[in-house]
Amino acid sequence: MIKASVLGATGYAGQEIVRILSMHPQVEIAGLGSQSYAGQSYSYVYPHFRNILDKTCKSPQDPEVIADADVVFLALPHGLSSSLAEEILQQGKKVIDLGADFRLNSQKTYQAWYKAEPPSQELLQKAVYGISELNRDRIKVSSLIANPGCYPTSIILGLAPLLREKIIDTQFIIIDSKSGVSGAGRKVALGSHYSEVNEDIKVYGLPRHRHTPEIEQELSLLGEEDIKVSFTPHLIPMTRGMLSTIYTKPKAAIKINDVIKLYQDFYHHEPFIRVLPEGEYPHTKYVLSTNCCDIGLSWDERTGRLIIITVIDNLVKGAAGQAVQNMNMMFGLEEDIGLNKIAVYP
Amino acid sequence: MIKASVLGATGYAGQEIVRILSMHPQVEIAGLGSQSYAGQSYSYVYPHFRNILDKTCKSPQDPEVIADADVVFLALPHGLSSSLAEEILQQGKKVIDLGADFRLNSQKTYQAWYKAEPPSQELLQKAVYGISELNRDRIKVSSLIANPGCYPTSIILGLAPLLREKIIDTQFIIIDSKSGVSGAGRKVALGSHYSEVNEDIKVYGLPRHRHTPEIEQELSLLGEEDIKVSFTPHLIPMTRGMLSTIYTKPKAAIKINDVIKLYQDFYHHEPFIRVLPEGEYPHTKYVLSTNCCDIGLSWDERTGRLIIITVIDNLVKGAAGQAVQNMNMMFGLEEDIGLNKIAVYP
Amino acid sequence: MIKASVLGATGYAGQEIVRILSMHPQVEIAGLGSQSYAGQSYSYVYPHFRNILDKTCKSPQDPEVIADADVVFLALPHGLSSSLAEEILQQGKKVIDLGADFRLNSQKTYQAWYKAEPPSQELLQKAVYGISELNRDRIKVSSLIANPGCYPTSIILGLAPLLREKIIDTQFIIIDSKSGVSGAGRKVALGSHYSEVNEDIKVYGLPRHRHTPEIEQELSLLGEEDIKVSFTPHLIPMTRGMLSTIYTKPKAAIKINDVIKLYQDFYHHEPFIRVLPEGEYPHTKYVLSTNCCDIGLSWDERTGRLIIITVIDNLVKGAAGQAVQNMNMMFGLEEDIGLNKIAVYP
Amino acid sequence: MIKASVLGATGYAGQEIVRILSMHPQVEIAGLGSQSYAGQSYSYVYPHFRNILDKTCKSPQDPEVIADADVVFLALPHGLSSSLAEEILQQGKKVIDLGADFRLNSQKTYQAWYKAEPPSQELLQKAVYGISELNRDRIKVSSLIANPGCYPTSIILGLAPLLREKIIDTQFIIIDSKSGVSGAGRKVALGSHYSEVNEDIKVYGLPRHRHTPEIEQELSLLGEEDIKVSFTPHLIPMTRGMLSTIYTKPKAAIKINDVIKLYQDFYHHEPFIRVLPEGEYPHTKYVLSTNCCDIGLSWDERTGRLIIITVIDNLVKGAAGQAVQNMNMMFGLEEDIGLNKIAVYP
Repeated sequence: MIKASVLGATGYAGQEIVRILSMHPQVEIAGLGSQSYAGQSYSYVYPHFRNILDKTCKSPQDPEVIADADVVFLALPHGLSSSLAEEILQQGKKVIDLGADFRLNSQKTYQAWYKAEPPSQELLQKAVYGISELNRDRIKVSSLIANPGCYPTSIILGLAPLLREKIIDTQFIIIDSKSGVSGAGRKVALGSHYSEVNEDIKVYGLPRHRHTPEIEQELSLLGEEDIKVSFTPHLIPMTRGMLSTIYTKPKAAIKINDVIKLYQDFYHHEPFIRVLPEGEYPHTKYVLSTNCCDIGLSWDERTGRLIIITVIDNLVKGAAGQAVQNMNMMFGLEEDIGLNKIAVYP
Repeated sequence: MIKASVLGATGYAGQEIVRILSMHPQVEIAGLGSQSYAGQSYSYVYPHFRNILDKTCKSPQDPEVIADADVVFLALPHGLSSSLAEEILQQGKKVIDLGADFRLNSQKTYQAWYKAEPPSQELLQKAVYGISELNRDRIKVSSLIANPGCYPTSIILGLAPLLREKIIDTQFIIIDSKSGVSGAGRKVALGSHYSEVNEDIKVYGLPRHRHTPEIEQELSLLGEEDIKVSFTPHLIPMTRGMLSTIYTKPKAAIKINDVIKLYQDFYHHEPFIRVLPEGEYPHTKYVLSTNCCDIGLSWDERTGRLIIITVIDNLVKGAAGQAVQNMNMMFGLEEDIGLNKIAVYP
Repeated sequence: MIKASVLGATGYAGQEIVRILSMHPQVEIAGLGSQSYAGQSYSYVYPHFRNILDKTCKSPQDPEVIADADVVFLALPHGLSSSLAEEILQQGKKVIDLGADFRLNSQKTYQAWYKAEPPSQELLQKAVYGISELNRDRIKVSSLIANPGCYPTSIILGLAPLLREKIIDTQFIIIDSKSGVSGAGRKVALGSHYSEVNEDIKVYGLPRHRHTPEIEQELSLLGEEDIKVSFTPHLIPMTRGMLSTIYTKPKAAIKINDVIKLYQDFYHHEPFIRVLPEGEYPHTKYVLSTNCCDIGLSWDERTGRLIIITVIDNLVKGAAGQAVQNMNMMFGLEEDIGLNKIAVYP
Repeated sequence: MIKASVLGATGYAGQEIVRILSMHPQVEIAGLGSQSYAGQSYSYVYPHFRNILDKTCKSPQDPEVIADADVVFLALPHGLSSSLAEEILQQGKKVIDLGADFRLNSQKTYQAWYKAEPPSQELLQKAVYGISELNRDRIKVSSLIANPGCYPTSIILGLAPLLREKIIDTQFIIIDSKSGVSGAGRKVALGSHYSEVNEDIKVYGLPRHRHTPEIEQELSLLGEEDIKVSFTPHLIPMTRGMLSTIYTKPKAAIKINDVIKLYQDFYHHEPFIRVLPEGEYPHTKYVLSTNCCDIGLSWDERTGRLIIITVIDNLVKGAAGQAVQNMNMMFGLEEDIGLNKIAVYP
């Protein structure tokens, strides 16, 4: 059994990690760290855990939370993971960080977008960007994972086959993403207040949402050239789910079935990626509560544009699920163990 | 491995059975019967099953659907199960019927409330009312289960301890229930049309909802006297979940902690019933996608009334989950196998 | 033109007053008082007012807000209205208080339920409980209105005809109310956080919600005897709307059409009360954004119980709309002026 | 008083016309035509009209519906308006058609996209495309209005200033639109079934939604060149509201405040268009139940792209409201009469 601790266990991403790990046949929860709820039982904070996980939350600073674990998941606001990760690694344990601290290779870029001190260059070099399907080999041997953001996950998976095959004009990538409200976390704010959000849609983060450099870094690596994108996130009135509509321009006219074939081959054998046949497009509901990313493709010959639509559950493949998928790899387990769920529907 | 078939597999209750059975470690799906979608793959009807269950739906009349199974779940409109059940039982297989046909012991009552032909008295006598926690001994040895309705489940579990202990005035039971929209099924109708239901609440079925005789029959058996109740269902704008608020009058003043203790003892060791401590009340969200029934209790000494609040997921404990719980018992499996899930939250 | 000021103008009830008054042909907004947003323009706080009301909010303590007005609406947390009202009345202006301070005639009851200092007995005696349809004569000549709470409005209007006619057993009144989330106001809190409230229903305030004494006081006045009720509020996932299901026991068997006739006569000529014919029941959506209260009635001869179902928009008839209706009366205007709207549907 | 009839009065767009006209001080409802509900009272079909409009619906073929009217609104499925319009015009009455029949100037384009017979060239030449703010002079003198679709309205208003000023590269226009469910109408279908739509987002109509040629035709007229666009509609879980995110590429670098100034000047004095200041972006909730279109602008100098975000209420400015705005103009009334409402909020 792998012993896992979660720091930031009472936020939504933290809760989702705890939820998945509690049903994982090869994992035992070692410790739960929570700034806000230290000293209280987990099932008091989240009553759906009653009789399932009544363990007491500890302060994130409590050394036991780390000492008892083989792997520590960090689900903390950005800026807090850096020193913690160093300490955990020094104890010979593995770290999976769901925050932004280790996602950007460049300290300068991190400073520019987050207005905060980046981790040391040494630590950054240890970190592997944890987009499971694309960085599998490096994830398996890493002890520090920078788990991707939800938006970047939905976008990178949607564009990877095109960029690897150098099919599209990399100067023309427009990404219009829509997210459920849980992505904003459990911290109360007017922007997540029921009566403000219900029956409403808005853009936010314009023109420079913080996930942009992460998206551009990974797309540039895939495409082997410097890529800039337009990225516009929207908030829509639902709790979970994320859909990204990605507009691209192939260098030459394509046949939609060839592109679908390309995607199917690229993601062949992937347990969590489903490429849809021609004329079918994904719904977020099809992946709700699962680690799946469904991808649909549409070619508009009138305009010469290829549109990619991807959906994920922002808290699963966009956060906790991918983190556990990475943990499975790091510990040599079957990649889908604890994650082979069917979407809750309707 | 148990081989299970589902007739009515493409309705919401049928889908939930298929979903649970697909993740059940000791079950194999033998056949899927669907009037509307015979000949089409299950994942075409429900794309969240893509790559998971692509099996083709057959006509419910196709003899193979039954022949291949050890147990057949019937998730059909009322009136269709009677002859089917007889046929399946004759083949030495077990039947779990999620419809209303076998729930009422009295043919006369069935006719009065459903305006339809009841099953034969012989078949009715074979049927066991499948409220798992209360009829466990009979369920284990039965081959024909009348799986309870969602409203009755939420109500019977909430009142059983009081009725068994004969604590309350049985002439004073007022039940005010609230249900999510999935309870109305997948059949399109103006009453389930998004723009009509969203941002709305209404009562329906007044003054004689069809679940009333089923509720009264089971409460009368528990209380060992003839019990009549006021039962008012409401439709609220959410997909899954059911909350019943039950108003009762104890024969004498009580202490709330004694009543809570009574419930906790009554449901001791039950894997799916959680009795809440004083001052805590259940949310439907706490049981979403699980087979749990959470129960809260409130004593109002000003009026001498004891209020019981119960929540279930209408499609799980209120339908498919309880059906699988019953199947587990009928086949001598651990009762919670395939059902030990944690609520999807938030 | 009547000059009206609103203190607490940036809460939801305050906003609804401002919204209604801005479209009222005989009213001019004199001042907007807001603790949180003093110094900011109203359309900055509520961008749907852009180009419509860009007036700057002032501190509620700013004497001008009151000095400029003929009538002042107070939409403040309880406990703040008492001294303000006194001051405003002394300046010869009228006060309509949407808080709880003046609703309870008894200082002792106020203290017991609100754990706060009640207004002086003198002020309390000046205050008229502003349930428009029932207290019309007193409202017209009053200068201090205690505007009813949303729950009490939906309940008192539903029971008044029965109590006036002394038809029901007053010891048997069970009220099960369901409210949209806007009733909890604009102050952020976990209990109004989108991801917690969406797809959820819960009870709250058990066993002693603060609206109980207000309900009992007014029902007792109507029935001319001491009445106690069971009252259970629920929160459901919608923004606006309130439905109360009220269970009563007539002293003798009744005919439903007689009772409907009684209600229709009782509310004859009322512009905002609609009594539904037999077999029809109200939806909250039918009154959304209007000052209407729709009432449906159901007689269950099996149990001898009469069920009354009422719906209102909690922010309109349950707060701001009724306040303006009262203002209209106090100033000798047509009662429905500025309020004759048709529900936004769907 | 203007006498107005509505054919298709019981669909959602028809209902919204009836709702607005019922509160319009200069209009009297002459007739209500409904295929599905002929012979039933309007308030039976839509109980929120109880005591407000109990008029009986007639067959759309009933000559009285037209004969009694000065103006007839057609809210019918496409293909039905052509012969009706001709007949109404011959009687010397005005027609405002909310369907697609008269929107496309070219019969060939209509046939290609709608696979149906277009109106005669003669009738098409009479029809004026009713985008109120842009075609005011022609609307005023027209007797046949082709009222724009909801998507086109939100898009054309967002792009008009840029196209008139020839600032952007017309080969680079990407439109990503999100609509509430009421846009799909009142006809029941699985795609509007509550449990399927709630907590879900999907694209639809790819790659050739029928609103595309209408959008391109009007943008081409504005830009005075042949314009093709990428247009992708999405369905999101809310009843009313539409947000379009439009990606453009200015021919040269711009200053955002210059562009905002351009828009403010362009829409100066428009009662229903609100251009937001720098850094503010519209929410659909800000225009709910109003005839407003709010526009926000964002310049991303990193990519050289200008993003326009527009919101409307799909049933008001996107359908019934704009229709009444056009009627006001056609009859020489103040343009905002009957439409000067403040958004219902929250």
